[in-house]
Amino acid sequence: MPLFDLPLERLRDYRPDRDEPADFDAFWSRTLAETREFALDAEFTPHAPPFAHVEVYDVSFAGWGGHRINGWFLLPRGAQAPLPCVVHYIGYGGGRGFPHQHLLWPAAGYAVFVMETRGHGGASVQSPGVTGDPHGAGGPQAPGMMTRGIMDPDDYYYRRVFADAVRAVDAAAAHPAVDAGRIVVSGGSQGGAIAQATAALHPSVAGACVDVPFLTHFRRAVEITDRDPYQELVRFLASRRDSAEQVFRTLAYFDGVNFAARGRVPALYSVALMDFVCPPSTVFAAYNHWQGPKEITVWPWNGHEGGSGYQQEEQRRFLAELLV
Amino acid sequence: MPLFDLPLERLRDYRPDRDEPADFDAFWSRTLAETREFALDAEFTPHAPPFAHVEVYDVSFAGWGGHRINGWFLLPRGAQAPLPCVVHYIGYGGGRGFPHQHLLWPAAGYAVFVMETRGHGGASVQSPGVTGDPHGAGGPQAPGMMTRGIMDPDDYYYRRVFADAVRAVDAAAAHPAVDAGRIVVSGGSQGGAIAQATAALHPSVAGACVDVPFLTHFRRAVEITDRDPYQELVRFLASRRDSAEQVFRTLAYFDGVNFAARGRVPALYSVALMDFVCPPSTVFAAYNHWQGPKEITVWPWNGHEGGSGYQQEEQRRFLAELLV
Amino acid sequence: MPLFDLPLERLRDYRPDRDEPADFDAFWSRTLAETREFALDAEFTPHAPPFAHVEVYDVSFAGWGGHRINGWFLLPRGAQAPLPCVVHYIGYGGGRGFPHQHLLWPAAGYAVFVMETRGHGGASVQSPGVTGDPHGAGGPQAPGMMTRGIMDPDDYYYRRVFADAVRAVDAAAAHPAVDAGRIVVSGGSQGGAIAQATAALHPSVAGACVDVPFLTHFRRAVEITDRDPYQELVRFLASRRDSAEQVFRTLAYFDGVNFAARGRVPALYSVALMDFVCPPSTVFAAYNHWQGPKEITVWPWNGHEGGSGYQQEEQRRFLAELLV
Amino acid sequence: MPLFDLPLERLRDYRPDRDEPADFDAFWSRTLAETREFALDAEFTPHAPPFAHVEVYDVSFAGWGGHRINGWFLLPRGAQAPLPCVVHYIGYGGGRGFPHQHLLWPAAGYAVFVMETRGHGGASVQSPGVTGDPHGAGGPQAPGMMTRGIMDPDDYYYRRVFADAVRAVDAAAAHPAVDAGRIVVSGGSQGGAIAQATAALHPSVAGACVDVPFLTHFRRAVEITDRDPYQELVRFLASRRDSAEQVFRTLAYFDGVNFAARGRVPALYSVALMDFVCPPSTVFAAYNHWQGPKEITVWPWNGHEGGSGYQQEEQRRFLAELLV
Amino acid sequence: MPLFDLPLERLRDYRPDRDEPADFDAFWSRTLAETREFALDAEFTPHAPPFAHVEVYDVSFAGWGGHRINGWFLLPRGAQAPLPCVVHYIGYGGGRGFPHQHLLWPAAGYAVFVMETRGHGGASVQSPGVTGDPHGAGGPQAPGMMTRGIMDPDDYYYRRVFADAVRAVDAAAAHPAVDAGRIVVSGGSQGGAIAQATAALHPSVAGACVDVPFLTHFRRAVEITDRDPYQELVRFLASRRDSAEQVFRTLAYFDGVNFAARGRVPALYSVALMDFVCPPSTVFAAYNHWQGPKEITVWPWNGHEGGSGYQQEEQRRFLAELLV
Amino acid sequence: MPLFDLPLERLRDYRPDRDEPADFDAFWSRTLAETREFALDAEFTPHAPPFAHVEVYDVSFAGWGGHRINGWFLLPRGAQAPLPCVVHYIGYGGGRGFPHQHLLWPAAGYAVFVMETRGHGGASVQSPGVTGDPHGAGGPQAPGMMTRGIMDPDDYYYRRVFADAVRAVDAAAAHPAVDAGRIVVSGGSQGGAIAQATAALHPSVAGACVDVPFLTHFRRAVEITDRDPYQELVRFLASRRDSAEQVFRTLAYFDGVNFAARGRVPALYSVALMDFVCPPSTVFAAYNHWQGPKEITVWPWNGHEGGSGYQQEEQRRFLAELLV
Repeated sequence: MPLFDLPLERLRDYRPDRDEPADFDAFWSRTLAETREFALDAEFTPHAPPFAHVEVYDVSFAGWGGHRINGWFLLPRGAQAPLPCVVHYIGYGGGRGFPHQHLLWPAAGYAVFVMETRGHGGASVQSPGVTGDPHGAGGPQAPGMMTRGIMDPDDYYYRRVFADAVRAVDAAAAHPAVDAGRIVVSGGSQGGAIAQATAALHPSVAGACVDVPFLTHFRRAVEITDRDPYQELVRFLASRRDSAEQVFRTLAYFDGVNFAARGRVPALYSVALMDFVCPPSTVFAAYNHWQGPKEITVWPWNGHEGGSGYQQEEQRRFLAELLV
Repeated sequence: MPLFDLPLERLRDYRPDRDEPADFDAFWSRTLAETREFALDAEFTPHAPPFAHVEVYDVSFAGWGGHRINGWFLLPRGAQAPLPCVVHYIGYGGGRGFPHQHLLWPAAGYAVFVMETRGHGGASVQSPGVTGDPHGAGGPQAPGMMTRGIMDPDDYYYRRVFADAVRAVDAAAAHPAVDAGRIVVSGGSQGGAIAQATAALHPSVAGACVDVPFLTHFRRAVEITDRDPYQELVRFLASRRDSAEQVFRTLAYFDGVNFAARGRVPALYSVALMDFVCPPSTVFAAYNHWQGPKEITVWPWNGHEGGSGYQQEEQRRFLAELLV
Repeated sequence: MPLFDLPLERLRDYRPDRDEPADFDAFWSRTLAETREFALDAEFTPHAPPFAHVEVYDVSFAGWGGHRINGWFLLPRGAQAPLPCVVHYIGYGGGRGFPHQHLLWPAAGYAVFVMETRGHGGASVQSPGVTGDPHGAGGPQAPGMMTRGIMDPDDYYYRRVFADAVRAVDAAAAHPAVDAGRIVVSGGSQGGAIAQATAALHPSVAGACVDVPFLTHFRRAVEITDRDPYQELVRFLASRRDSAEQVFRTLAYFDGVNFAARGRVPALYSVALMDFVCPPSTVFAAYNHWQGPKEITVWPWNGHEGGSGYQQEEQRRFLAELLV
Repeated sequence: MPLFDLPLERLRDYRPDRDEPADFDAFWSRTLAETREFALDAEFTPHAPPFAHVEVYDVSFAGWGGHRINGWFLLPRGAQAPLPCVVHYIGYGGGRGFPHQHLLWPAAGYAVFVMETRGHGGASVQSPGVTGDPHGAGGPQAPGMMTRGIMDPDDYYYRRVFADAVRAVDAAAAHPAVDAGRIVVSGGSQGGAIAQATAALHPSVAGACVDVPFLTHFRRAVEITDRDPYQELVRFLASRRDSAEQVFRTLAYFDGVNFAARGRVPALYSVALMDFVCPPSTVFAAYNHWQGPKEITVWPWNGHEGGSGYQQEEQRRFLAELLV
Repeated sequence: MPLFDLPLERLRDYRPDRDEPADFDAFWSRTLAETREFALDAEFTPHAPPFAHVEVYDVSFAGWGGHRINGWFLLPRGAQAPLPCVVHYIGYGGGRGFPHQHLLWPAAGYAVFVMETRGHGGASVQSPGVTGDPHGAGGPQAPGMMTRGIMDPDDYYYRRVFADAVRAVDAAAAHPAVDAGRIVVSGGSQGGAIAQATAALHPSVAGACVDVPFLTHFRRAVEITDRDPYQELVRFLASRRDSAEQVFRTLAYFDGVNFAARGRVPALYSVALMDFVCPPSTVFAAYNHWQGPKEITVWPWNGHEGGSGYQQEEQRRFLAELLV
Repeated sequence: MPLFDLPLERLRDYRPDRDEPADFDAFWSRTLAETREFALDAEFTPHAPPFAHVEVYDVSFAGWGGHRINGWFLLPRGAQAPLPCVVHYIGYGGGRGFPHQHLLWPAAGYAVFVMETRGHGGASVQSPGVTGDPHGAGGPQAPGMMTRGIMDPDDYYYRRVFADAVRAVDAAAAHPAVDAGRIVVSGGSQGGAIAQATAALHPSVAGACVDVPFLTHFRRAVEITDRDPYQELVRFLASRRDSAEQVFRTLAYFDGVNFAARGRVPALYSVALMDFVCPPSTVFAAYNHWQGPKEITVWPWNGHEGGSGYQQEEQRRFLAELLV
């Protein structure tokens, strides 16, 4: 059934109780403090051959554990600095790809800082990656990244990723061409989840574009969708039948609804009603908890691709208003 | 078997006999003459809201039958005209999409003219289209475009498309910012087939970027691959069992190997050895017939996505050398 | 879940509100008037070699736009004219096939007039077609026929088809062996939709056999089934995200529930409870709006094949009573 | 690869050695003698309600083991007896279906006798069956009929079926309206295999129409196709890994190439070059061994559906010439 | 949706009305009496080469109709007789496999008697079978065993199987090393259904381990799951559209809920909430009707594999307590 | 095509050239020396509740990097020590599962030591795992284990696994009940690859049972099979198009053909001719290079399951002869 989730009128009001650990904020404060013990050491190397109208840098910086995290940094050549900057996070499975895949925001007059998700991108034919996750896991995992280290919040894969993401904002802010007060985070699916978390964790982010976010409202997600990557969790639990309590304890530190409840900046969400990968109720669960100014674009006939180009036109409008 | 076609060393020499109608050139001369009876009437409407660093136009012009064909025209804002221009054709099923999906060549310092393929794009979630094919067909067709009007070369769908494509070069050349002597055609898959044909049919094209071209060496394609869209032909022949002779007679006017044999300008091809959609032998069949200066990038581990971003880096190099 | 739609007891009462344009009747009057401006010009050519006991004619007539529409006309050889006649419409994707596939009604003592659906049949291995749709479309379409011209009711594919279907009754009535007062329309799936519409649009039809009708209650269909051909609509809307209002405005002129509400003659419907292609609630939606004498056969364990041979036995009984 | 088997020019000459048990003829003589010990006891019950122009009988007779085998018998009402008769056998999985599915030959002026394959038809939505196989099997079987009793030729399922088929010819010949000297056997796939065997086993059959026959050249079939039903054999052998010798010993008594080598009457074969179910080399293996007058229709673009309606037109021509 | 059935809290209370024929007990008394007319004739042949620490016997006995039913009998070598014994039944499609696949209970100190399900195992690569079902069926069947003889309870396949299963307990009890008062039945899926029925039918069984039982609450199963083997029933009914009443009449004699209602001995059930093959509501339907002492292990994240090794650890505990 | 690889007669002779790095032995000496710097620290903890006739220990030891590697150790209770011991490695994706899944060799009179493959088992419903791989990777990876650290032999996942495997033999030898001179390694698929490598790397192994080994003859494997896990390599190369040379340089240190060429002890291989996962030519490539006494069981009708229980019967025979 294409319309498999709640009807739109109920989604508008869907604001489930959140399962939040008492030490949620302490956990993240400690994590970020640990991460910031490593000097940021952001490097910007010009990419060759150059583009006539866009400056392109191969960037890296020290993320969680001091591990090198790679990305791209682009800005319109000859533009008047300082510029607003979009820090962009990548969807599940993708790497940073090629600079020419990130020309939208430079064309619009902004800088863009693309952060690679560690360990991803090794099987993406469109967006190859280069960044590894040098940290393994203390226990077995289902293939994919969803269950790497899932038996312990400190060991969990997304702890490292979200910490990297906060440092990516620091790295962008460190570039002389960037106006540190006008940094916006963005991303779709996994990238949307990272943007959502970063907007909650980083004090100086100015706004967020969150498309069809993943990693949000896990409890409902694993019951309502049989698609990957949420199903990685189910496969793990189907194997390690005695681990459910521990798994969900870990996930509570990473659940998008808990980050959304800490969102104070303007946010533009999008959701698709036929999205079997990130079901609409899980997206509305976060959106309805978001505390800041917000709007959401609903795509009634789309799956996980959501609004794609249409949504990017929405974002151009949203950012033009936000970043004047 | 991933390596399902000939081994690379045999592909390098694979240059099959061509099945070319005696009136091939006459057919196309007549077709283009007919098409040019309609005034080009190219219109360039600024797209709103504007991009800070790129000028974007919603374009249309009169294609075959005088039908309006839509597209995009982008150039770097404030660049020194006249500029080289890439005329880009779209792959099967796609429409022109959004302007921000075509920022590569403006960033590199060129104009880009994107021509929509009539009738396509109605089911593409990433690249919606707006251009119809007001001409139907005298007989039934298999779903898709491959067999629309296939019983008669004059009625065949790609006759209209290739004629549109030639007119797209005229339309690009008509823009004051474009240097008509430095127009290059490009495209992948169906777009590659159109670029290949246009390079043969339009006298003033300066070069061609042809990626994993479709519509090439039909006879072998339908025997070696069971994937769409080539299989549209097989489905048609499996239904209309008495039509094979007529169908292949029509296709001979549209076969990429016959256009390649008329290619005189520098060309950069690409091919993927695990491409089940446009099998490598069909690509080499055309490449080995190409008469002009040429090079080919071989992607040994890829399917129909070919080199994607890697290949676009190759094209940046190729065009930088060609268009100085 | 095999029983995916409403339970039978609720289906029996399912009679949703209809979304009917104010000018529905005017639209169709105008359409039929336009169509009838072309002389019918029905031709009946004997098919060779002849069958010993059945007369077979290859027929054609002028449908919408004066386009030639093909079909078969069969009657029992040596039967006493005038005969009752079944005008039969074809399911989605099929052509008229071969005369020997239409021997049921001649064996039962009736004539049968089989109308081909323009443009279909190009990929049907069992029922090849020969009739084209010379009219294209003003905009792009998803593969298949469902969205050809869908942005405008006047341009929509099924406008031409339903107009052809009305003329098919005229053509059957024009044959000297046919008793024009005893013409029944029939069909399954798309053919059922056409029969349902024709029964409403043609004043002299005497009855209708409507099996698992397609093109009926579009709004619910696209939400409840993920199967083709209804999904062609969803694919189009997923691409052209801003077109939903216009698309449903067009569809309202073609929705089976609106034709059913104009049905005055005796009708025999059939429905299958596990039919994922034409879900049972969409069928009951029409059936429960039908105004004339009616009965419906419910096949609880079947998918879109419905009752097939069992239902044809029902039809033999129904027609025997109706056409005495 | 659609053209997965030998190229046509090699198929024309493909005549592999046959693996024939020394007692092949004795085995079948004994089998038929055993079967004929049961009185034929053919019953013809009029089917109600009657068709105006065709007489329809629900028939049954004593097959192997005296088990009742069901079918249909149809002839043109009021035709001049005695008539030629087509004895038709059903494809794998199908039952006899409904009388109106067998109107072709009565329309052409012949009687038709449709024999049901025992045990089949229990899952066919188009052609339900009514005949059981009261004999089980001495060992386990893979689902389907291919391996029922396969460890012993005397216990093998098709021994009973082929014996039934010979008796079906007897039953047809026993009807007063049938000209026993003008009985032709026909069938497609499994039906083709049965027709092929019956033409070899029954002394008075006058011709055979054999379409894309199954159960022919087993050794090659199981190596070249991964489709059912041949794969039932592979599944059995993959389970019972020590049974291959015994299994192929059994199959040698039932292999179509051994029956073809005994075919003396005129035969019309058909074969499809993209038939993954009954690969073309297995069909040509039999055809090239056939000893009688023969012709074969080659369908180059089709799968297992072969020529379908086109081939039935061929058969009308073939029978018209044969049965004058 | 992974959680496709009722939520756990409703499953706990789900105890649907049962459809039980008035002569249910008489039917089974008669069946068992008939079966016991054949001497049991249990044979225990040592399997070679021997295992150092386990005695292994190839066993057979006379089941329904006196047909030989095969299996394995294992006991710890040198253990103190008499021993408790687990009589184990096999899941759908499997045969008895190899002795080394049944070492669990001998390691735990019990004997194990493995009964093969007649006719199964012919396509199981892990668990080949050797036992046939010499009794065929009076009518056609869908592939698989579910509909063999389904038009008549006396002819139905599972009548023979359940009768065999009761005799398997007799055979185990007949072995001198077995303590006939401490025989427990066990099995998963089909094996669970057989164990459930045998516990109800055999007076001296001491307990039952019933995992994710099949053949239970048919009415709901065929409506809620589209997986095999329950779908064999739907395929049969979709073909034989007029047989539903008769089919469900037969099934009522074999429905697990009716056996569960006769269960008086201690039982350990297991159920999986994401089991699309044997949906959890059908399992709870039986469990909630079970009359004896009972417990059920719920596996919330598993499909039809249920608890597998985890559940076998549960069974070790359960049997250790039961069989002291 | 089921028989997709070379025919058996060519497989018997298939002995391709090997691509072996000059420092292959040095690499492994260094690796094992590094690993042995960590004290073995093998722990054997009794598993509860106990089995009556088998002693079961939960074992762990220090593998590569000193990481704890888990497993099971079982021996027949009360048997006369020292015993021969089978060290068993697990197939791709599986963990150590449950002790009762490893009762074969204790029943046969041997001890068995089951080593878990680090990081696997997180999604196996039958064989859950508990051992993690605390070492991550310096670059991105495709999902699965095949490409973890593949850009550098020192960082490659299987370097750690093979080193663990050598230490597992040390750990087994350290148990007082084990006769260190009669240790045999075994495994199927990935487990076969590990057994094959360990037999080459560990000086005191007495024999090897290698079933359908994976990780062998990579170059051919990735060209001939499109199945996982070999396809993980292709997905990585399709993404990281510039990495092929480096990837194959790494793989050469891990290729089974290079270990087979160092095999000196008696080996029992098995291979399946329809194995699309580990194609038969890749197995024969290793087998034909094996230097010690050897035999191979060929399963002509099987896929990757190979001989399963049949092969285990072969192994019982092979070990009975080897370990007397």
